[in-house]
Amino acid sequence: MAQKTINLILMGYGNVGRALVRLLEEKTDRLRASHGLSLSLQAIFKSTGGLFPCAGLEIKDILDDPAAGLSSHPLWKSNLSLESVLREAEPGVLVDCAPSNLKTGEPGLTHTRLALDSGWHVVTANKGPLAVDFSALRRKASGNRLALKFSGAVAAALPALDVGLYSLAGTEVLAIEGILNGTTNFILAEMGKGRSYSEAFQEARARGIAEPDPAYDVEGWDTAVKLLLIANAVMGLELRLADISVEGIVDLPAELVERARSEGKSLKLLGRIRREQSGPIASVAPCTIDRTHPLFGVDGPAKGITYFTDTMGALTISGGKSDPRGAAAALLKDIINIYRS
Amino acid sequence: MAQKTINLILMGYGNVGRALVRLLEEKTDRLRASHGLSLSLQAIFKSTGGLFPCAGLEIKDILDDPAAGLSSHPLWKSNLSLESVLREAEPGVLVDCAPSNLKTGEPGLTHTRLALDSGWHVVTANKGPLAVDFSALRRKASGNRLALKFSGAVAAALPALDVGLYSLAGTEVLAIEGILNGTTNFILAEMGKGRSYSEAFQEARARGIAEPDPAYDVEGWDTAVKLLLIANAVMGLELRLADISVEGIVDLPAELVERARSEGKSLKLLGRIRREQSGPIASVAPCTIDRTHPLFGVDGPAKGITYFTDTMGALTISGGKSDPRGAAAALLKDIINIYRS
Repeated sequence: MAQKTINLILMGYGNVGRALVRLLEEKTDRLRASHGLSLSLQAIFKSTGGLFPCAGLEIKDILDDPAAGLSSHPLWKSNLSLESVLREAEPGVLVDCAPSNLKTGEPGLTHTRLALDSGWHVVTANKGPLAVDFSALRRKASGNRLALKFSGAVAAALPALDVGLYSLAGTEVLAIEGILNGTTNFILAEMGKGRSYSEAFQEARARGIAEPDPAYDVEGWDTAVKLLLIANAVMGLELRLADISVEGIVDLPAELVERARSEGKSLKLLGRIRREQSGPIASVAPCTIDRTHPLFGVDGPAKGITYFTDTMGALTISGGKSDPRGAAAALLKDIINIYRS
Repeated sequence: MAQKTINLILMGYGNVGRALVRLLEEKTDRLRASHGLSLSLQAIFKSTGGLFPCAGLEIKDILDDPAAGLSSHPLWKSNLSLESVLREAEPGVLVDCAPSNLKTGEPGLTHTRLALDSGWHVVTANKGPLAVDFSALRRKASGNRLALKFSGAVAAALPALDVGLYSLAGTEVLAIEGILNGTTNFILAEMGKGRSYSEAFQEARARGIAEPDPAYDVEGWDTAVKLLLIANAVMGLELRLADISVEGIVDLPAELVERARSEGKSLKLLGRIRREQSGPIASVAPCTIDRTHPLFGVDGPAKGITYFTDTMGALTISGGKSDPRGAAAALLKDIINIYRS
């Protein structure tokens, strides 16, 4: 198989960034054999600077000291600029796993624009830039004939976007329903076992399922942002967060969950959007669904999404790891699919 | 959006072929707007001859008389050869929805080879050629830089292949389990309501779910062929049908279904393959699964498939219409994805 070397720049070196570096090491042979790709990590950026050039480095040297790690490395530069790396290295893919702000999109928004303006594809797990400026970023990417892929920002290993954009090509998506947040689905499952909201919430924390600041999850915003990104990409909309009615599960009365259960039903936090004659209607809210609903069995910390279409009926995807390795695998998949011939 | 005109040759004019012609008509505007594609039907072949050239014809003229239809059309040629059409028209996509033989693969095998040798991509719903000669056809296609896509041969609208080949890029698929045949799943669901095998079988016939010759379904061969095609494509294997141990559901004792149900479990006809150190092990057999199995909720005439991977965990896809319109939509999707930039 003909081989191609692709440069990567990694923005962010948290759990997902490190999992990706590890995966690049682990999958080197497979990427060559199955896809003819040699992925060459050129630079790693953190908010405090960057490591560059990494190309000659053994990946295990980078991984060896994950905590203090990068900034004590002899090649660490506290004043390294992304512009200089984008200019010096042959364009490939900028991979963004850095933390970002959902209100401003920064610093990811600036990084994404810089990359797309410099001939680099972008693969991102960073919701901020997409939530703030999706339509313009998509236009910039397609105008420059570059890919902007964001499976990792939407549902990690669950291929919600692939199915929506690729497998449903030619259909009209009439509605989407999704259980898009693992933390809230876990809390609801625990409440289904008879626990109160706060007991279930503590359990999610104890198991490391809930984020350090879980308000974003339990108030429904994580679901809303994911729904927004999926609906805009798949249904060709230009929705903003303010267009979605959002209700979370904070302090949800245990009786509601219990009543659903006693009727053989299940209470889920659903993100939903459907086309109406007046335009799309989108919401996030706790909903009681019965056994016939395709997401009925999506339980515990799992996620799932159903597309309702004109020609293919209803299609459901569920499962997929949502740990850092699963998210990194989604990034790697997006990189591979850019270069698929 | 830049527009591209793509020539199509349609082999077979049964339910799926007619549904595709209808869909081409219905989706003309959408294909132009969303994908920049204008699909131009050049010829329709039946076993008795062909209609050519169709390019100038209104599609409704072709559809108007579906029964006697084609062969009484002024452009019908009973001696039309595929070679001549492949030669005269600018290469595009040969779409195969003709009946074929699972033992010889003919006549689809000859048609597929001719198309790939003449610079035409192939999109097929025809299992025969793939079951008989998949590896060589795949090599021929990739050697000639042509696409050979077969979503329609595997699970109609259920995007089993897209997810396996596209969304799981970079993962290793350790095992696959699937409910791949709607007829048998319907029969088992009816038996779950207390019916005997023969009562359930009659019900499937009465509802038009069972094929006129359902032996192929209920003996497990349809599931086996689909498992074979998916496993070979996704796991990179070269299995033959003889490598799969196949057990169907013919005359399955109602007690087995009842016992599963009384234990809160469910009996399904599963196609399964897993990698072992000694090599892949593949089987089709009735299996009892419990509530925690990702295919537990795939009921009635529905289908579903679960991929077990090294990095993304378990991913399940279910649903998708399996009527002629759903199958035609899968063919259309494959055509669109060939020309995706």
